[in-house]
Amino acid sequence: MREVAIVGLGQTPVREHWESNLRDLAVTALRDAMEDAGVDTVDGVCVGNMLSGALSEQEHLGSLIVDYAGLDGVEGMKIEAACGSGAAAIRMAVKAVSSGLMDAVGVVGVEKLTEYSGKYSTAALATAADADYETTMGLSFVGINALLMRRYLYEYKLQKEDFSIFPVNAHKNAVHNPNAMFRHAITNEQYAKSKLIADPINLLDSSPIADGAAAVIVVAKENISRYKGKAVDILACEVGTDTLAIDNREDPLWLRGVERSAKKAYYVSGLSPKDINIFEAHDAFSIITALSLEASGFTEKGNAIKFAERANIGINGTFPMNTSGGLKGRGHPVGATGVYQVVEAAQQLRGTVASPIQVENNKIAMAQNIGGSGATVITTILKQI
Amino acid sequence: MREVAIVGLGQTPVREHWESNLRDLAVTALRDAMEDAGVDTVDGVCVGNMLSGALSEQEHLGSLIVDYAGLDGVEGMKIEAACGSGAAAIRMAVKAVSSGLMDAVGVVGVEKLTEYSGKYSTAALATAADADYETTMGLSFVGINALLMRRYLYEYKLQKEDFSIFPVNAHKNAVHNPNAMFRHAITNEQYAKSKLIADPINLLDSSPIADGAAAVIVVAKENISRYKGKAVDILACEVGTDTLAIDNREDPLWLRGVERSAKKAYYVSGLSPKDINIFEAHDAFSIITALSLEASGFTEKGNAIKFAERANIGINGTFPMNTSGGLKGRGHPVGATGVYQVVEAAQQLRGTVASPIQVENNKIAMAQNIGGSGATVITTILKQI
Repeated sequence: MREVAIVGLGQTPVREHWESNLRDLAVTALRDAMEDAGVDTVDGVCVGNMLSGALSEQEHLGSLIVDYAGLDGVEGMKIEAACGSGAAAIRMAVKAVSSGLMDAVGVVGVEKLTEYSGKYSTAALATAADADYETTMGLSFVGINALLMRRYLYEYKLQKEDFSIFPVNAHKNAVHNPNAMFRHAITNEQYAKSKLIADPINLLDSSPIADGAAAVIVVAKENISRYKGKAVDILACEVGTDTLAIDNREDPLWLRGVERSAKKAYYVSGLSPKDINIFEAHDAFSIITALSLEASGFTEKGNAIKFAERANIGINGTFPMNTSGGLKGRGHPVGATGVYQVVEAAQQLRGTVASPIQVENNKIAMAQNIGGSGATVITTILKQI
Repeated sequence: MREVAIVGLGQTPVREHWESNLRDLAVTALRDAMEDAGVDTVDGVCVGNMLSGALSEQEHLGSLIVDYAGLDGVEGMKIEAACGSGAAAIRMAVKAVSSGLMDAVGVVGVEKLTEYSGKYSTAALATAADADYETTMGLSFVGINALLMRRYLYEYKLQKEDFSIFPVNAHKNAVHNPNAMFRHAITNEQYAKSKLIADPINLLDSSPIADGAAAVIVVAKENISRYKGKAVDILACEVGTDTLAIDNREDPLWLRGVERSAKKAYYVSGLSPKDINIFEAHDAFSIITALSLEASGFTEKGNAIKFAERANIGINGTFPMNTSGGLKGRGHPVGATGVYQVVEAAQQLRGTVASPIQVENNKIAMAQNIGGSGATVITTILKQI
């Protein structure tokens, strides 16, 4: 089994890309990553995407994207794991390269959510939840997260305003990320007055739907000298799952999928939570950020907000989080998000991020991509070479 | 890189399963395969599926199916490659096992096409084609295949009736397959009088939409003695791609995806077309069967029908094809089809097929699963142990 590394990074800005379609976005990011790696071709392409069928009337993205990227005849497949599709595609690339079947695999996460073909994105996104036992009850995805947040506030006797620390941090960092959707800071006061979406979740708890594509080139570590792009080690890319519906969980406030994924990643990498210098959390909603910090072992159950305050999650704090804006500030093109997280974490380790958000003295970054309300979780740990 | 084998097979009948939903079908097939292999759990599950989002309002099948199969916490992912999704999922399992990352992977292909949630299956299936350059022109999937068949008849000066050899053979074999949808023979006369669907394709050229699930357990060959189920070698499981839209192909009658996939499979296995004892062709439409025979190297271009007549594609012929009924007779639950093909080929090599359709003296079987009109092709070569 071969060790693997990333040698190419690509991304489009996260926006409402009215002028570009799904294939344009994917090809732009993939070709950028290939150029960064210094390669003309790859042995295979893994496409992370959730909703191309529902919103762009297009399945079969694997051969479409290799075709339009000029990779005539190359193997291409789409991997779907709801909002975790991006990192799931990276996981598949890791398998292909570590097996020795392929030397270089391109991974592109792509999503076009600001598209309408008979179905709106809220209905489409609800297909990440259990269609028979959640969605039929009228639960949208934000509704499920609202139930979790309400329960969290009740159990731990918190005020809703306590959650502002996560989106305020994300927006502060997004200001300096040229690819972020929301490049403006927000204040605690703005958060407190923000419009309710599904009580207690407000607009500033919610990551925005968006279009975008991000890509990485995964290669065997033994071959990194063949490539132009500065390599970053993939120490672990591990998956944990949980029940799809939250009502089947013994404790809805404990994300077992996160715990399983993170523990596997620590085991495989030989690291522990205290070794992580940067954490790219899946802050689709503020409540998920809190639950992830706890189930990943960074702090004890119910203590995420106090932990974030104490550790200081800003760029110069002891536990920098969502350094390029996270899902909240950068935007959340669902099937692309997991790849954006890994691209941003790799940029941090390369030291190539805009100076106000470059974390100094960082060696190890962890990115965690979550599908649904924690049913699929992929934790990737990267190391500076 | 480890060699891989199959040690468990499972399948549901291919029917209109009005009483069972997507997860029921998938779990039934997967648990059957696990029981056949003699295992209580697996290290990961790859789900082949195309249209769960469009027709069952359900994405995120990976964690759903591991959850309902009682595989709490196990890694699960959905792989999509249109009608090639099933074998694409097998390909992903092969990577996971050959890498050493996993010892046993369950693959389940599942599709529920007789479901309606705001979209009909013809529209949903059209998402396998190019949405921007084919579907927008009003081309349905059968329409694309009709263009290919019309061209074939013209180029090679054939009569439509010449194509009856493929569906007549498929139906003849399906009679003896208890899981087949159409267990009745058809005649050349019935074919000649069959209702036109999209000229020149008639009803008996067209495989039926259907519901079903099939599963295999992929393990490392070095470990086969650990399992109860009789093992079958996977000598190759290789992917070739082509342009998504047929108008981008230099010669629409030459399936380069098939050629690439088959050539890779021959190379990896060290075999050639003459070594294949049984061929499970992707007979979604009769024209695709003919084009596959040619591009796979079994006969020269334009000669498929003569080849089939001369070789005799029946059970006792020199080149038995679609021995359990193929897509035409067994039915075509799209994302499950590629797994059904491999299950049926493996049953042949195990010698466990009903006697009228058991091929004697067979050692090597090849199954070919095709996504779209040849844009993704996965060729799997199995060997008796």
